[in-house]
Amino acid sequence: MTTSTTRRKHIVVIGAGFGGVSFCQNFPAGLAEITLVDRNNYHLFQPLLYQVATADLSPSDIAEPIRTIFDRRQDVTVLMDEVTDINLRDRQVIMRRRMLSYDYLVLAIGARTSYFGHDDWARYAGGLKGIDDALAIRNRVLTAFEEAENCTDPEQVKRLTTFVVVGGGPTGVELAGALGELTRRILKRDFKRIDTSRARVFLIQGAPRLLPPYHASLSEYARQKLVQLGVDVRVSARVTRVGPHQVELADGKIIEAATIIWCAGVEGHPLVRKLGLPLDHNGRLKVQPDLRLPAHPEVLAIGDIAALTDARGRDVPGVAPAALQMGRYAARVLTAELRGHPAPPPFVYFDKGSMATIGRAAAVLEIGRLRMTGLIAWIGWLIVHLAMLVGFNNKVSVLTEWIFRYITYRQGARIITAPRTEELLRNTPSQ
Amino acid sequence: MTTSTTRRKHIVVIGAGFGGVSFCQNFPAGLAEITLVDRNNYHLFQPLLYQVATADLSPSDIAEPIRTIFDRRQDVTVLMDEVTDINLRDRQVIMRRRMLSYDYLVLAIGARTSYFGHDDWARYAGGLKGIDDALAIRNRVLTAFEEAENCTDPEQVKRLTTFVVVGGGPTGVELAGALGELTRRILKRDFKRIDTSRARVFLIQGAPRLLPPYHASLSEYARQKLVQLGVDVRVSARVTRVGPHQVELADGKIIEAATIIWCAGVEGHPLVRKLGLPLDHNGRLKVQPDLRLPAHPEVLAIGDIAALTDARGRDVPGVAPAALQMGRYAARVLTAELRGHPAPPPFVYFDKGSMATIGRAAAVLEIGRLRMTGLIAWIGWLIVHLAMLVGFNNKVSVLTEWIFRYITYRQGARIITAPRTEELLRNTPSQ
Repeated sequence: MTTSTTRRKHIVVIGAGFGGVSFCQNFPAGLAEITLVDRNNYHLFQPLLYQVATADLSPSDIAEPIRTIFDRRQDVTVLMDEVTDINLRDRQVIMRRRMLSYDYLVLAIGARTSYFGHDDWARYAGGLKGIDDALAIRNRVLTAFEEAENCTDPEQVKRLTTFVVVGGGPTGVELAGALGELTRRILKRDFKRIDTSRARVFLIQGAPRLLPPYHASLSEYARQKLVQLGVDVRVSARVTRVGPHQVELADGKIIEAATIIWCAGVEGHPLVRKLGLPLDHNGRLKVQPDLRLPAHPEVLAIGDIAALTDARGRDVPGVAPAALQMGRYAARVLTAELRGHPAPPPFVYFDKGSMATIGRAAAVLEIGRLRMTGLIAWIGWLIVHLAMLVGFNNKVSVLTEWIFRYITYRQGARIITAPRTEELLRNTPSQ
Repeated sequence: MTTSTTRRKHIVVIGAGFGGVSFCQNFPAGLAEITLVDRNNYHLFQPLLYQVATADLSPSDIAEPIRTIFDRRQDVTVLMDEVTDINLRDRQVIMRRRMLSYDYLVLAIGARTSYFGHDDWARYAGGLKGIDDALAIRNRVLTAFEEAENCTDPEQVKRLTTFVVVGGGPTGVELAGALGELTRRILKRDFKRIDTSRARVFLIQGAPRLLPPYHASLSEYARQKLVQLGVDVRVSARVTRVGPHQVELADGKIIEAATIIWCAGVEGHPLVRKLGLPLDHNGRLKVQPDLRLPAHPEVLAIGDIAALTDARGRDVPGVAPAALQMGRYAARVLTAELRGHPAPPPFVYFDKGSMATIGRAAAVLEIGRLRMTGLIAWIGWLIVHLAMLVGFNNKVSVLTEWIFRYITYRQGARIITAPRTEELLRNTPSQ
């Protein structure tokens, strides 16, 4: 019981991704009342989401109940609800089921898949942002093979066993690599009538090389590894049209594929478009060097929703480490304000390096001028990701899964949880 | 390559539960062509399904792809499709997407939840037969607490945190016990505004005691353990009406509960009603002592769909060991016929004993005259269930999960995969 007569300030945090959770964890317990709102009851470890899509991991392996993360924080209230609007003038957050007033607002609402103005393509080419997306891809891929196994029309079999991944950034590369392994190695012995290793996985990249932020030698390594896994890598290839089970490229090539996955871009959550505030070309909120909104100093934006060139002139990228750092920084800003201390110096993004995995024992890693590939990079990737799972209950079972899979060449979650046979076929051109 | 001029006989097996899988595993490889049809791509380890409902386990922990089970059997074709009808005269199985002709048919299609003629109750009180059911219950239970945490109306909170399990057989007892532990122990520290241990779990049993097939002393032990877990056990209590978030008992008591789960009975799969064959009062096919249908000796029924009093005068119960034994026996019958050997003696059910778990370190076990309760029985239950998971890839991760949970008092899969807040509320009577 507080006997203080001054009401504690109320901070509303929207989004329990890396940014929102980091803010709450770094904000001193008891200094304010915090309400953390998310549409889901879990915090998602997004860097491993593609492994749910390829049936390597179960959703609960990479999702942790938000309540569990804050079970010792009496000052953090967790709310499962969806924010529909924000009234910046009256400092109110409007949700589907209730409304909240705030003194400070931390916007950590994240990004969604961007189709660069072609939102109608979403119908034919789902993204990979949440667990529902991942399970939809998994169901689709596994169902496609089930269908192909019992299909007598060779054209239809070809279409069913063709997978197109659009986008050659880390997500696209990791997903295409995992699909290559799934079709070439893991599913091979399950199917008898079709040869799953004849399945085709396309990776379509608009830029001249994969993983553009990396050094060119790593891009080339990734390309070679993907080709070894049977992935048909197309660079400098622009998608001009996506239709039902069809992708058309700028060079006129049409790829017929039952499964198309869009990993080509992200944009700020559409909610922020309603706010009438300055956005960058990716629909992200422009923030000041202290992460506050220019017109609303009581509102901070962090993570993928924030567009910022930091104090050293570096564009802060939309990656998990940046969100974690912004969350920590935003906590410092508000702590200083509430305690009447001087504001901290402007935000500076510290690049700890980047890594992406391509397949079994193959990864790329770049830390400053240090570049690594192969088994060593893969082990580094494994260690970093397991370490990042700290705080996640599930790391024990994820670790067992990984070791078990590595030994047996099997996959743990190869089940279709919502059979969608009919949907898959209904959209398929007949003959 | 077979060079024999006689076509191999075609056996169609409908259902990849314990019965269907056991038949295929025990049937000699290469003696016939087998097609195994199931609506799902996985075989489900149903005895642990309730642990998916209570967020202890993930679906993939207890589901194994059917293809993986038979990946070395060239004579077994696995088909994912739903059977809509059977033409017994022309020996054809009609499915949603194709048709199959058979020489022999093994019906292992199983049971579904029975509402004893009140099928409209299904809308308000779901059963627990498949993974979808289990996930629906999990989402419902977790969402109810999410709602209650942020609800100011005490009546509504009470309704949201009341759970009714109808049926005091093994499934109902295990589920009620697990819900008791979930609310009393595991969720307790996640929620701050509501005291989850004040949640009410009702177990409604029509018979005068729980677990009727067990010795009365075990029923009493189970009842006491459930009461210790905070479960309100009502025996000799008949449900007279189920409405939206309401259960009415014969004594006039009305329980208002956001979540009602029906574990009171099962009946044969509705497909068999179309066949015009003699059924018992539970909608199961009456079979001969050799598991064949009286009018169609080329059709065998095994598992929960078969009604049989065995050669020793014992009614074969609808449990996993009985299905396994019938599958093995049916394989012997058809093997003998195809090889021109004499038919085996009539089927006899071998009762290996029964066991049910009530909660942490509490179970009942009965093998003939041997009866055990408490920790010893629970360890027995654990060993038997892990042993039965043999052939399941996932036993390693299930084992880790269990050990981890036992040590930490936490649960592994406490995530809401499809938020259903609105559905939960829409049906709730206002005020």
